[in-house]
Amino acid sequence: MTKTYIFGHKNPDTDAISSALIMADFEHQTGNADATAYRLGEVGPETQYALDYFKVEAPELLTDDLTDQHVILVDHNEAQQSADSIQNATVQHVIDHHRIANFETAAPLYYRAEPVGCTATILYKMYKERGFEIKPEIAGLMISGIISDSLLFKSPTCTEEDVQAAEDLKSIADVDLESYGLDMLKAGASTTDKSEADIINMDAKTFDMGDYKTRIAQVNTVDIDEVFERRDALEKEMLEVSADEKYDLFVLLVTDIINSDSKVLVVGAEKDKVGTAFDVELDNGTAFLPGVVSRKKQVVPQITDALK
Amino acid sequence: MTKTYIFGHKNPDTDAISSALIMADFEHQTGNADATAYRLGEVGPETQYALDYFKVEAPELLTDDLTDQHVILVDHNEAQQSADSIQNATVQHVIDHHRIANFETAAPLYYRAEPVGCTATILYKMYKERGFEIKPEIAGLMISGIISDSLLFKSPTCTEEDVQAAEDLKSIADVDLESYGLDMLKAGASTTDKSEADIINMDAKTFDMGDYKTRIAQVNTVDIDEVFERRDALEKEMLEVSADEKYDLFVLLVTDIINSDSKVLVVGAEKDKVGTAFDVELDNGTAFLPGVVSRKKQVVPQITDALK
Repeated sequence: MTKTYIFGHKNPDTDAISSALIMADFEHQTGNADATAYRLGEVGPETQYALDYFKVEAPELLTDDLTDQHVILVDHNEAQQSADSIQNATVQHVIDHHRIANFETAAPLYYRAEPVGCTATILYKMYKERGFEIKPEIAGLMISGIISDSLLFKSPTCTEEDVQAAEDLKSIADVDLESYGLDMLKAGASTTDKSEADIINMDAKTFDMGDYKTRIAQVNTVDIDEVFERRDALEKEMLEVSADEKYDLFVLLVTDIINSDSKVLVVGAEKDKVGTAFDVELDNGTAFLPGVVSRKKQVVPQITDALK
Repeated sequence: MTKTYIFGHKNPDTDAISSALIMADFEHQTGNADATAYRLGEVGPETQYALDYFKVEAPELLTDDLTDQHVILVDHNEAQQSADSIQNATVQHVIDHHRIANFETAAPLYYRAEPVGCTATILYKMYKERGFEIKPEIAGLMISGIISDSLLFKSPTCTEEDVQAAEDLKSIADVDLESYGLDMLKAGASTTDKSEADIINMDAKTFDMGDYKTRIAQVNTVDIDEVFERRDALEKEMLEVSADEKYDLFVLLVTDIINSDSKVLVVGAEKDKVGTAFDVELDNGTAFLPGVVSRKKQVVPQITDALK
């Protein structure tokens, strides 16, 4: 039997890691015994908290060349967010909740996208449709993905279906959503033990926006000021990476998970466009954005429009 | 409530027309009362036979500009096979069984693709998952799409799920699959009443293959020789259209629906590549291809490879 590689996006967050593990379990239940979860980067502390809590091992780091291999993508589809050798692989299935772009196949495939808050929510529906067993640790991973992507249901990306899935799953996983969720988010929100390079890379994605290449990183915190004490060092690191990777714009979104606000730090030739995007005057490359917590809904479309 | 436009590909075949009508019914059952089926071209005689048999009106021809409108695509996703103003529309949902290419959205959406023989088969599964009522005429349209795309279950694109769907639906639609199917296919297989322009346009799709733009038309018949009596006139028409539309290659696939074979007629600078694709010597621009009936599985990938 041909092996099936299953993985989420680069710089994996909790939904990317959890969804790969969940989808591998789903495939095993369909009879695809050689389906294996992988990750495209380091496991962050928030995700590690979830894995430890539910006693699940992290997937292996993907190092194999995927040429002519069968793959299943979860939580992403855009080539620049995927494995480097994805162009030569055969994508058999995609489960995702993002826009579709930079994605092309030679042959028909399974593709399941829904505009919900989290890939794990779609996987939960797939288990229900097929009548598959949801083991306690799989329920725990689903809940972790949902809480991470929705910032405990506060993000505007969160839908009724995400909330309902977490409610349905909490008794199987045997957790209290509020207390487990806050503990998990806090585990990923400490920035004092992280280098500037860690902070700007941990949860960062690259977007082709018209003629511009934009990098948008997001870091969760319980204290925005604690992060901005290192403003100069962060800015220097962002400028260096932008020079190396030819980013036209690099945005760091520092999100307060308790109060649901963000403050941005911006570098690059096009940085004034970020002021335009949010209708604010940048103060020395920074701006406070009340109520902004979602990169996908409250940042990417706005900057994409401003760059047009 | 905002209107939702639902349509299949240009040069609509029976699956494209049927799936638009079925999806409109599905949307009505979800409560989306303003969902309306459209078509992007003329209704062919095979499809008209199915519509008449099940007493369903053809969808209206789409003439509206889709800028800022909500649309649902069925049976296609590639922009060049869709409405001319598709780039400015908001695609909310896609139901399809083809490869994904030349498709990009700004926002997350519903996308359901499965590598089955027919879009109507996926729609049938969606009705079952939601527990929706399948009315007799909807069952008839589903069966018609399946029989058309699978050439009465003989095409290599036909899967177990397509056969099972047709078997499940025949009692609701009250038809015998073999006799209804053959009558429907024969209704679309008469070429004597068609002009050369009709024949090369009726079921034709354009494909970007590397640096080349390829047009592949397919016509069903019960008598291949009857079509090839008009070889010179067909070739002239294909050359004229190729000059106008800058096709590098134009392939006409004439398919014998009784014996499940095809004969091709090829024009264009790259026509020798079609010989390479099928490992045959073209005889004055033609070749007999035993067992070939599926453009998607037995023609497009082979020519794509040969053009690389």
